[in-house]
Amino acid sequence: MSDLALIEAAAQRLQGHVRRTPLLSSPFLDEIAGRRVLVKPECLQHTGSFKFRGAWSAISALEAGQRERGVLAYSSGNHAQGIARAAALHGVKAVIVMPSDAPQLKIDNTRALGAEVVLYDRAGESREEIGAALEAERGMTLIKPYDEPQVIAGQASVGLELAEQARDEGVDASDVLVCCGGGGLTAGIALALEARAPGLRARPVEPEGFDDTARSLVSGQIERNAVQSGNICDAILTPAPGEITFPILKRLCGPGLSVSEDEVLRAMKLAFLRLKIVLEPGGAVSLAAALFRPQEIEGDAVVAVASGGNVDPAVFERALAQ
Amino acid sequence: MSDLALIEAAAQRLQGHVRRTPLLSSPFLDEIAGRRVLVKPECLQHTGSFKFRGAWSAISALEAGQRERGVLAYSSGNHAQGIARAAALHGVKAVIVMPSDAPQLKIDNTRALGAEVVLYDRAGESREEIGAALEAERGMTLIKPYDEPQVIAGQASVGLELAEQARDEGVDASDVLVCCGGGGLTAGIALALEARAPGLRARPVEPEGFDDTARSLVSGQIERNAVQSGNICDAILTPAPGEITFPILKRLCGPGLSVSEDEVLRAMKLAFLRLKIVLEPGGAVSLAAALFRPQEIEGDAVVAVASGGNVDPAVFERALAQ
Repeated sequence: MSDLALIEAAAQRLQGHVRRTPLLSSPFLDEIAGRRVLVKPECLQHTGSFKFRGAWSAISALEAGQRERGVLAYSSGNHAQGIARAAALHGVKAVIVMPSDAPQLKIDNTRALGAEVVLYDRAGESREEIGAALEAERGMTLIKPYDEPQVIAGQASVGLELAEQARDEGVDASDVLVCCGGGGLTAGIALALEARAPGLRARPVEPEGFDDTARSLVSGQIERNAVQSGNICDAILTPAPGEITFPILKRLCGPGLSVSEDEVLRAMKLAFLRLKIVLEPGGAVSLAAALFRPQEIEGDAVVAVASGGNVDPAVFERALAQ
Repeated sequence: MSDLALIEAAAQRLQGHVRRTPLLSSPFLDEIAGRRVLVKPECLQHTGSFKFRGAWSAISALEAGQRERGVLAYSSGNHAQGIARAAALHGVKAVIVMPSDAPQLKIDNTRALGAEVVLYDRAGESREEIGAALEAERGMTLIKPYDEPQVIAGQASVGLELAEQARDEGVDASDVLVCCGGGGLTAGIALALEARAPGLRARPVEPEGFDDTARSLVSGQIERNAVQSGNICDAILTPAPGEITFPILKRLCGPGLSVSEDEVLRAMKLAFLRLKIVLEPGGAVSLAAALFRPQEIEGDAVVAVASGGNVDPAVFERALAQ
């Protein structure tokens, strides 16, 4: 199947199960940015992030035998919650492999959403080995967080919605800024916009110092981050763009942008004050770029896809204290 | 015109200008409430509350001469912001009469939205006299916050959307809990549901000790609150149900509910954690009742209309500290 056929088939399966998030705006944000700012708040999606879309797409695409044997994911974050909930709603068993030092709240939430959590010791064990054993012994299907065509096709539904919503707002040419980790959301949106709104151009946004995708787009080949921790935007600290996502990004995306932790916290506070939504740091980098990097953006309007809102109260209080 | 004709005409004028807010949910909230909880987040409406709907309805219904002379409102809160923004978008001059001890942020926001703010001294001056002078001298039209048919017709659009959205969720019989001050939102929703979803029943929710509407529904006549301050839910501390709204509430609504400040703060935190939305205290009483007063509610599902999100960071931090 072509990318577009996959995306359209996924959109059919998502219909009525995935929330169509609105497009938000505020004259106060327009004033800061110097142009119209339209925000797509995926924090309002089921489980608090866009990840539910890809999870639903992948699980709903499984064959009957695969559904019976269940699914498997490695994640301590948004992908885990998306898979756990989508699997439970399909009546499919889900095992999430998480490090034993993951925050207790995330472990509890993933279990409460219906998944079995298998903990491993980061120091002495390999999650890949544990996962491989579960695949072999129980015949479970691994669902990767971004390098998986059905996951990308599910995330593309954000782009399908945006194409219609931007048109309704009279916006037919603009940059679409997307919070970028492994690139599944950015690639899916880019594919959907190519087909449905070619005047809208996806651009990845990353934390400063973790701009593997931006550098990869410049060099034309996959570049890696030197480190994978030490930034507030934990949800999007991935080692490098994916093998499947990067060729899509390279073909379709505009240049990457990156923002500081301070800009991220300020964007979270402005989303609180002006849009009344809760963003996590990794879900706010796109809005931060829209507001604070106006010289790097083209056009009279900009779209920011705010990808998630799973933030601890303590971190949110840091943002409010800005 | 009948109530329904007014509502349908207002809905036409609102089309494309008022945001259609989604219907949110979380399995974690369902678990607390012991039934399905569907939340209509009007905090995501333009200016952060449902008040923009009524303001747009009233201003768009003015005749040409009235538009030229401008509009007038008394408010230091959500009605002020709704009127200021709706007037600016119509190119209509707006004067908002506010007490000189109103929070500077609210004064600044109202001005930033394009209104002229006229301050008065609560101790020595009457806002009604100031308003009457503006009406007489400048021919401005006063737009009341709830006892005004076009305002009620605008708020009713929440009920029109809910009727469709609840049906899409398979809910055709439930209580619809509404944050209630003067009763404009509750009355509008009740009228819309009567016409479009008769199995859904509006019920007002108020802060404990400020349950004028609940008591009025019991006695069958307008009852007043003894005091009008001293509760965190400032947006809905009104002296009594309105002369126009109360007969509608009496004919159509189920019994009122009331909730404590502690319950309101806990509901705000749960809306943050599970729905990723920002609620102000007065906008969270409906969710608090849905979650913490299950014995007073009927049916397998409950709808809570969360009416606004204009909350200061300091108050929000109090909620997060729960």
